[in-house]
Amino acid sequence: MATAVTPPRGMRDFLPADKATRERALGIIRSSFAAHGFDEIETPVMEDTARLHSGLGGDNEKLGFAVLKRGLAPADLTAAAEADDLLSLADLGLRFDLTVPLARFYASHRADLPTVFRSIQIAPVWRAERPQKGRYRQFMQCDIDIIGEAGPLAEIELITATVAALDNLGLTGCSIRINDRRILSSLLAFWNVPSNLYERALITLDKLDKIRVDGVVAELRTLGIDAPGIEDTLMEITKVGWGLRESGEEQPAWLDEAAYEDLLILKAALPDARLEFDPTLVRGMGYYTGTIFEIAHPDLGYSLGGGGRYDGMIGRFLGSDVPACGFSIGFERIVDLLAGDDGTAENAVVLVHEKDADPAALVRLKGALVAGGLRVRLEKRTKNLKALLERAGAAGYGRFAVVADETVTADELVFKPLGD
Amino acid sequence: MATAVTPPRGMRDFLPADKATRERALGIIRSSFAAHGFDEIETPVMEDTARLHSGLGGDNEKLGFAVLKRGLAPADLTAAAEADDLLSLADLGLRFDLTVPLARFYASHRADLPTVFRSIQIAPVWRAERPQKGRYRQFMQCDIDIIGEAGPLAEIELITATVAALDNLGLTGCSIRINDRRILSSLLAFWNVPSNLYERALITLDKLDKIRVDGVVAELRTLGIDAPGIEDTLMEITKVGWGLRESGEEQPAWLDEAAYEDLLILKAALPDARLEFDPTLVRGMGYYTGTIFEIAHPDLGYSLGGGGRYDGMIGRFLGSDVPACGFSIGFERIVDLLAGDDGTAENAVVLVHEKDADPAALVRLKGALVAGGLRVRLEKRTKNLKALLERAGAAGYGRFAVVADETVTADELVFKPLGD
Repeated sequence: MATAVTPPRGMRDFLPADKATRERALGIIRSSFAAHGFDEIETPVMEDTARLHSGLGGDNEKLGFAVLKRGLAPADLTAAAEADDLLSLADLGLRFDLTVPLARFYASHRADLPTVFRSIQIAPVWRAERPQKGRYRQFMQCDIDIIGEAGPLAEIELITATVAALDNLGLTGCSIRINDRRILSSLLAFWNVPSNLYERALITLDKLDKIRVDGVVAELRTLGIDAPGIEDTLMEITKVGWGLRESGEEQPAWLDEAAYEDLLILKAALPDARLEFDPTLVRGMGYYTGTIFEIAHPDLGYSLGGGGRYDGMIGRFLGSDVPACGFSIGFERIVDLLAGDDGTAENAVVLVHEKDADPAALVRLKGALVAGGLRVRLEKRTKNLKALLERAGAAGYGRFAVVADETVTADELVFKPLGD
Repeated sequence: MATAVTPPRGMRDFLPADKATRERALGIIRSSFAAHGFDEIETPVMEDTARLHSGLGGDNEKLGFAVLKRGLAPADLTAAAEADDLLSLADLGLRFDLTVPLARFYASHRADLPTVFRSIQIAPVWRAERPQKGRYRQFMQCDIDIIGEAGPLAEIELITATVAALDNLGLTGCSIRINDRRILSSLLAFWNVPSNLYERALITLDKLDKIRVDGVVAELRTLGIDAPGIEDTLMEITKVGWGLRESGEEQPAWLDEAAYEDLLILKAALPDARLEFDPTLVRGMGYYTGTIFEIAHPDLGYSLGGGGRYDGMIGRFLGSDVPACGFSIGFERIVDLLAGDDGTAENAVVLVHEKDADPAALVRLKGALVAGGLRVRLEKRTKNLKALLERAGAAGYGRFAVVADETVTADELVFKPLGD
């Protein structure tokens, strides 16, 4: 059976050192969210196909892995071939995000949840994307959502909890770019963009950082959008900030005033979160209805997470409207930025023993050390002791002792630092 | 969209209280294993179909969820129908256990792992079984395995770590039933059972506890196994224990001596593990080659986990023989036995505020309490304050304070116990 032993395309194995870093980071994120009053839930990795393809998932719906019905007969396959309906063979699919399952969960358990429900979901999702650097077919998402709160307290608590998680992970210097879908709408209306071109115009606007004012004007023109004043507005946008009210200048005509007022409330309530108003922030998901935000890091050209308000969506499974707002940390990007060393190596020790040592004596010795709070790995002595110890050092062990005589007690062991 | 909002058949949502209990238990199991020198790894939830159906998974292979290939054309379906080969439409499947992925992982990463590799895998698996009480289509497995150790130290470390995890979970009174496949073989050989009936004879033998000696004799007879002395042997088996060597009596002729000697080594090395020799312990998986063991609890009629030595299997993906031994805790059974209260409610508090309170002031107050080490949930005052507080108490919060005036400081808040 000399087949390839690699994981499936676009998916990853995690060796002990990486797995330890990931679990440590997930633990910090989990406890940061929990301290801020969020409660963790879990849903199955699969959902019914009908639910996954209900339109709430946007483009991600096309990337779902579908699970074959059990017990299909050849006639079922023939029928699916004739109808050209591959998905009729699948009853379940792997979730491609955590928002569709949350909407389904909330609809199912609303009676058992608090009126304002603050959820944590820390779990993998799957997308059959073309694999590329930093993009995987299985990856972790860390989502918090607040369901049932229409006011700014939702955004404030989400951003506070997320900033706390980043701080606790040791990721300093992050800021939060923030905008509101209503401001994007008022801007597009000001330019007289027809609504069927909204989405493409927003994709172009989103690139202002990279292709500058000239580039955006040119791209809009190829879309047939060429209102007078686009260039002036874009110049104005790049300079606009939190001081519009105080400046005494006239309010820009393209700016939705109510939305800007709401953002000012967030700014005032979050003095430590480095909120940056960015009217060109778009974010992809079509279901956002109000505020949208992203985590920016000064050294990185991509965001480390984001979210926003999506008031229309949770209600789709309920038949009644429920306000909702969420924030998702881009775990796979963040974990790459973390240091592997957590300072616990000192308490992880290796006991090197002879090949013929009495197992009962060894396990007694190990048990005494574990009871004393140490993490203990037994290692049979090999010819190349140096290589053995180097490997243990790389795996997070900080000290070692050689058990020359297994009648030694735990107190008598002499520990030396690994890597010296 | 008034469709059912329940999770897929046989799968479960976990609400906050249950999720917290599960995560707490998983954390205890994880840290217990880690303290004993095991290292956690992770593999993708999917594996290539060919690997999942390589024969290593036994009967579980038939229970796998298969994932449809992406981009299939109607002609592919027709071809699969003609060949009556449903699985040709699937390239991936969800893992049904953690042992097949471990064998694949070890073959892929052997060069980066220590000579004796002690792995932890704590992860869900999926089986398309008929759902029934206590049996789910998605469930957690907690496996530890030692690869590369042929001697009894593997069994000793596995049992030590597992017993430590059970102790740390507060599950007292468990014992470990232990046997060796070689002893089962010597017993069947003593009865002259033809090898094609081994499996069915073992299934019968496994029921000795329930159907007693008479029942086993009768069932064996219907299989055509009717050697003289079966009844006497069974009577002997029910009495046999650790004292055979000391008793001075003649060794039973049905007992593999070398295997019994090996078990005595484990017994001597594990004085605190309550090891019980049980020559009728069978365990289902065909891949076991030596010792087999199960966690027994005096109040329960089912085991809480088990494992054994499976020296032949890891090598199947490698092309060379590697000794291996594993122990799996039955997480779903164990978590039901745990108390929900973890004693942390005291540090989880609810702040009840008026509907029109200033969000900035509230989040400042909350931030000060979180910084002081508390877990804080905000709750808008409702008409039925009592119901609100009861719900928070059920969710694990222990104290509450009413924020009558939001200019109050964290120090001035008066906390009262919830549920009084």
